[in-house]
Amino acid sequence: MNNFNFCSPTEFVFGKDREQDTGFYVKKYGGTKVLLHYGGGSAVRSGLLGRVKQSLEQAGIAYVELGGVQPNPRDTLVYEGIALCRQENVDFILAVGGGSAIDSAKAIAAGVPYDGDFWDFYSGSQIEKALPVGTVLTIAAAGSEGSGNSVITKTEGALKRGAGSDLLRPRFSVMNPALTCTLPAYQTACGATDIMAHVFERYFTTTTEVEITDRLCEAVLLTMIKETPRVIADPANYEARANIMWAGTVAHNNIVGVGRVQDWNSHGIEHELSALYDCAHGAGLAVIMPAWMEHVYQRGVMRFAQAAVRVWGCEMDFEDPAVTAREGIVRFRRFLHGIGMPLTFAELGAKAEDIPQLVENIGIGNGTRAGFTTLTREDITRIYEIAVDPKLL
Amino acid sequence: MNNFNFCSPTEFVFGKDREQDTGFYVKKYGGTKVLLHYGGGSAVRSGLLGRVKQSLEQAGIAYVELGGVQPNPRDTLVYEGIALCRQENVDFILAVGGGSAIDSAKAIAAGVPYDGDFWDFYSGSQIEKALPVGTVLTIAAAGSEGSGNSVITKTEGALKRGAGSDLLRPRFSVMNPALTCTLPAYQTACGATDIMAHVFERYFTTTTEVEITDRLCEAVLLTMIKETPRVIADPANYEARANIMWAGTVAHNNIVGVGRVQDWNSHGIEHELSALYDCAHGAGLAVIMPAWMEHVYQRGVMRFAQAAVRVWGCEMDFEDPAVTAREGIVRFRRFLHGIGMPLTFAELGAKAEDIPQLVENIGIGNGTRAGFTTLTREDITRIYEIAVDPKLL
Repeated sequence: MNNFNFCSPTEFVFGKDREQDTGFYVKKYGGTKVLLHYGGGSAVRSGLLGRVKQSLEQAGIAYVELGGVQPNPRDTLVYEGIALCRQENVDFILAVGGGSAIDSAKAIAAGVPYDGDFWDFYSGSQIEKALPVGTVLTIAAAGSEGSGNSVITKTEGALKRGAGSDLLRPRFSVMNPALTCTLPAYQTACGATDIMAHVFERYFTTTTEVEITDRLCEAVLLTMIKETPRVIADPANYEARANIMWAGTVAHNNIVGVGRVQDWNSHGIEHELSALYDCAHGAGLAVIMPAWMEHVYQRGVMRFAQAAVRVWGCEMDFEDPAVTAREGIVRFRRFLHGIGMPLTFAELGAKAEDIPQLVENIGIGNGTRAGFTTLTREDITRIYEIAVDPKLL
Repeated sequence: MNNFNFCSPTEFVFGKDREQDTGFYVKKYGGTKVLLHYGGGSAVRSGLLGRVKQSLEQAGIAYVELGGVQPNPRDTLVYEGIALCRQENVDFILAVGGGSAIDSAKAIAAGVPYDGDFWDFYSGSQIEKALPVGTVLTIAAAGSEGSGNSVITKTEGALKRGAGSDLLRPRFSVMNPALTCTLPAYQTACGATDIMAHVFERYFTTTTEVEITDRLCEAVLLTMIKETPRVIADPANYEARANIMWAGTVAHNNIVGVGRVQDWNSHGIEHELSALYDCAHGAGLAVIMPAWMEHVYQRGVMRFAQAAVRVWGCEMDFEDPAVTAREGIVRFRRFLHGIGMPLTFAELGAKAEDIPQLVENIGIGNGTRAGFTTLTREDITRIYEIAVDPKLL
């Protein structure tokens, strides 16, 4: 196990009707003037935004609003938010929504007290200061409610880049699973895929002797395998929604990933897909992550066999563990297909002829990407090609 | 799943040589004058205390010392610590040691800014304010490095009682697994038993639909089952020590226990044993927890069968799940025996004739204790009796 620091100070306020307490928690964490940041119509139509405003008003908290966050949130709205916060002397950013609204809120929070261009933080500069962020979560997926990460897309050039800092971890996150009961099946499945990918990106590691985090990763995956088909079949199942929501936070606040080399190449390779086609991140991951597995499993057969046995319930083939490793990948794809996810470029609406551009956008030139296994430009090309025409189905 | 709040803000500073950074973290969390609180000779003899002092000095932090914390820490030393802190204007309590030093430090932290008797907090009063606490952990066991709990023994009457508040959660905990490599096998096994008990107390619940926390509990238990025999056989095995140490924190910071009714009756029943005989808490748990299981498993056979199958690797008996449930308890006892733990009153040095007094000390009168199943005075008597002469061995 490698040395690590771990600090997840977010207060999670979990359960039915908890959004009614939002104002209390803004006040508790020092907010007096809030930017209420959200996406499109669903938070308005469902009445959630109204309830949150009421809670702020009851707590005597002033607010200004900035809606319109898109999936794959854009830098343009971040600039708008930063300007608005400065003009209105906002001291607390409250995101109401999913990963996109939260990631956009984090970018604004980092940008307000910074003299330069906030995009610097998405190009490698370290965040030194940020306004406090709180969230009211409406979809279990990105894990952004408990993480210090944010991903923003630069409109010019369709570049999707991430920033990370413990300063971006929300002060509190209100998590009412009932708010996710009205999500369409496709978005639910995209969220579940994203959660599972967050775990697999940590699970596939070169670090040995990490039984505790292996087992914790497997715990989250086993939960998702049980609960996801239940909510696809019965969207209003509160209990299954609750299990998925807490799994989504545990998957990405890094408690299951400490002390080990992580991968994140499937995320990186997928980001170029959702940046170019504006497809859902989870759907892109359903196409890319098994393709990554199909390309690299021979470089670490026993770890893939472990996942197959412990996560997918495969029998171990002691004579030929590669058989088991492959069976695990097949079962992952069947699971994804079963919850309605695409498995190929065609199903996603991506085009094989764009592969050279996708590889170009990853921006590694003739370099490599580290992780469970080092990927060259050729490896990445091959992974996209497998996603066009996968074999382990 | 029940509604819950969860906030574990402690910064965990984990890995080799990390105690050298202690001064940095005291400063980061606002300490200027520290009470250095520790137990007996081992922290001094090993040179750890010296390294911690050096780190404080390098960071320009002043300190006063109070050693002498005993296992099952006493109220008397807490009073001494409170007086010393007031006299010396201490603003930060740094525990160097295991659960006893940390629990004692937490009691002092709560007592210093309180006008009344600190024992009020161990008799049900709520903590409103506390000095910040940091820890340098030397044994994986109590989980106190990441919890908001503290257990203190009142010398008069040998009463062992707990207090809990998020205000008692350490600001930081330095966790170097190498510091535990010199622990004797018996103490190591006691610590491992305590960790497993912290998980089982959460696992046995009446709350349904808690797959995520079930699986996380099982993850910690499976890790302990793998790693504990390794460190008993090879005490200096850093990697196994590291897995156990992180498992010990995850077991008790409550991330595996949120949203569900918990039990804690084995802890309560054991506390009277260690209060009366001053035996190690973990050893007492090895005697009491399986006895509790033997007494109550018929009240929730399927949950015990789940533990047997998922944690102990038993085959499910679909015709008679009670067979599987019993097999799980047998395997737990065999595991404990294998790591050198006592299983009976006799092996622990406890006496059957003291049972009436032990039951009396629990202090429920003719009332009951809630949990996985409600326990009456008669139930508790029966559990102690089973611990005298267990059947499922």
